Amino acid sequence: METLTLCIIGERGHTNYVLDGLKDLPHARVAGISPGGAAEGVEFLNAALHCMGHEPRLYAEYRQMLDRERPDLLCVIGPFERHAEMCLEAFARGIPVLCEKPVALTLDELARLRDAWQVNPVPFASLMGMRFESPFYTLFQAVKAGVIGDPRLIQAQKSYRLGARPDYYFRRETYGGTIPWVGSHAVDLIHWLSGQRFESVFATHSAQNNAGYGTMEVSAQMQFVLSGGVAASASLDYLRPSGAPSHGDDRARVAGTLGVIEARAGRVWLIDAQGERELALREPPSLLADFVAQVEGSGEGMQDGAQTLAVTEACLLARQSADEGRVVRFVQEEA
Amino acid sequence: METLTLCIIGERGHTNYVLDGLKDLPHARVAGISPGGAAEGVEFLNAALHCMGHEPRLYAEYRQMLDRERPDLLCVIGPFERHAEMCLEAFARGIPVLCEKPVALTLDELARLRDAWQVNPVPFASLMGMRFESPFYTLFQAVKAGVIGDPRLIQAQKSYRLGARPDYYFRRETYGGTIPWVGSHAVDLIHWLSGQRFESVFATHSAQNNAGYGTMEVSAQMQFVLSGGVAASASLDYLRPSGAPSHGDDRARVAGTLGVIEARAGRVWLIDAQGERELALREPPSLLADFVAQVEGSGEGMQDGAQTLAVTEACLLARQSADEGRVVRFVQEEA
Repeated sequence: METLTLCIIGERGHTNYVLDGLKDLPHARVAGISPGGAAEGVEFLNAALHCMGHEPRLYAEYRQMLDRERPDLLCVIGPFERHAEMCLEAFARGIPVLCEKPVALTLDELARLRDAWQVNPVPFASLMGMRFESPFYTLFQAVKAGVIGDPRLIQAQKSYRLGARPDYYFRRETYGGTIPWVGSHAVDLIHWLSGQRFESVFATHSAQNNAGYGTMEVSAQMQFVLSGGVAASASLDYLRPSGAPSHGDDRARVAGTLGVIEARAGRVWLIDAQGERELALREPPSLLADFVAQVEGSGEGMQDGAQTLAVTEACLLARQSADEGRVVRFVQEEA
Repeated sequence: METLTLCIIGERGHTNYVLDGLKDLPHARVAGISPGGAAEGVEFLNAALHCMGHEPRLYAEYRQMLDRERPDLLCVIGPFERHAEMCLEAFARGIPVLCEKPVALTLDELARLRDAWQVNPVPFASLMGMRFESPFYTLFQAVKAGVIGDPRLIQAQKSYRLGARPDYYFRRETYGGTIPWVGSHAVDLIHWLSGQRFESVFATHSAQNNAGYGTMEVSAQMQFVLSGGVAASASLDYLRPSGAPSHGDDRARVAGTLGVIEARAGRVWLIDAQGERELALREPPSLLADFVAQVEGSGEGMQDGAQTLAVTEACLLARQSADEGRVVRFVQEEA
């Protein structure tokens, strides 16, 4: 197998998806890394990569890295507010991009991404880690196999501990908001599980009781209407107490024409005409391996650029709905 | 204790709340019963009451019953589309009313009820049976005791088997819709648990895949914004498979500033700074006994007329939102 070269920008948040994925990809070589900005570091990333046998070149300026290394794929894990810019630079060079979600923090950025991606439709996905967790992967496979018939109603939940957060969470400009940051996972699940188009959204969010964390919202809910009369809701919070047995309480429930399926507490339950039972968990690929297979043409991949853009749009319109207290309708057809 | 006299109109649906409640009220005597209309019967009700030692007089016309018996309270369990009319007749006579929910099927009816009740503010409540189920009663008592701090986010779920239904479910005029019929319980829980005013609602409902049951919706979701930035959602469905272990899968979850509490599968879990644990269930009063205590002045009662009207309004505005695909705002202050 030919060597696959990667470059990585930044070491924020979910660097673990990339590092964990690399362990199972012996033919992948990290050629270059670059901080996401002047105030950002990559020391942790650099140390971790060396420990794993990689010897990345360190670039102060990521554009120079892209031009010199011409990597087979770029991972963008830098400042949230520069995701879109960095994706655009990669698209312009024909480089596939795996980017932290959301890939854009504003509708303007999203429009530029969409236009550029249509010109250079490289493989493009984001760090939608929930798809690659066993319970949600198992639930998806069961839904796609038709065990609950046609999905009619979806409920998703993300409940996190608040804990200590870096300063960039406390401003909309650098955080983007809890709906795009936390809610994007729920929106992605809804899009992925329903197989439908988003038609409208009503959402609400609140920064009350946020421990003084600036504009950071700590509770939010979204209600989507999708094509085919499918309804989907998501509830998001950072209200999970410090004493909770785990960081998150993530759930998804899909009620369909033949049954109801639910992922909760790391397990999956199905109710159908035969009764209720727990499903054996299926082993998903790693997020990185799945994307690499798509880049190399050896697999279809569980994510694609059109989905990535559609889910980002849904997050940004939900945030707009919550900001403005009104229903926002989706006017553009998905690619 | 003085004898308490009751009259009952109709025997639809939740007659059991009244019959079960009577067993624990030895001083209560059912003086008269009347069918809810020409096409309705009270044979089952009559037989059950005789079996319990009551000897109600049977009236073809309920107004005559109210005038002759002048009962201490009236139970309205007849055709849904006549709830409001029957409550109005009772209000006009100063008779306390316990009515099947929703107490009105249209906003016009509701306005008439509200006006009349303000003139004659008799004890007035509806068959909000979920409040009187141990898990939800336990959850409410814990929330009111402050164990989760201030509620910020509420999720409610009603999931039913569809099963065989009488014809009056299949037309909006006689059924009212799934949001008022099933959803009223969820709306009532939200109102009761949050202690907040409704500010706006966005809802969606669908009659697709309803087994040919006319206009009856089998899936619906609602998203409420309440005062204080509290968000509340409810998911309603008749998609629970025939093989499910029970008729319903009713749930409520409240995330607050100090913890998260949830009622699910007949049990209640609390997560706070000390960890996660199951709460011992508390024994609620019967719905009827609670209302009788209010009528007799021996207790405050867990329901009141202002709540009953506010919850009915919220259901009808949610249904309007779903019909019209837009956010509906609550303009009236609650009494």
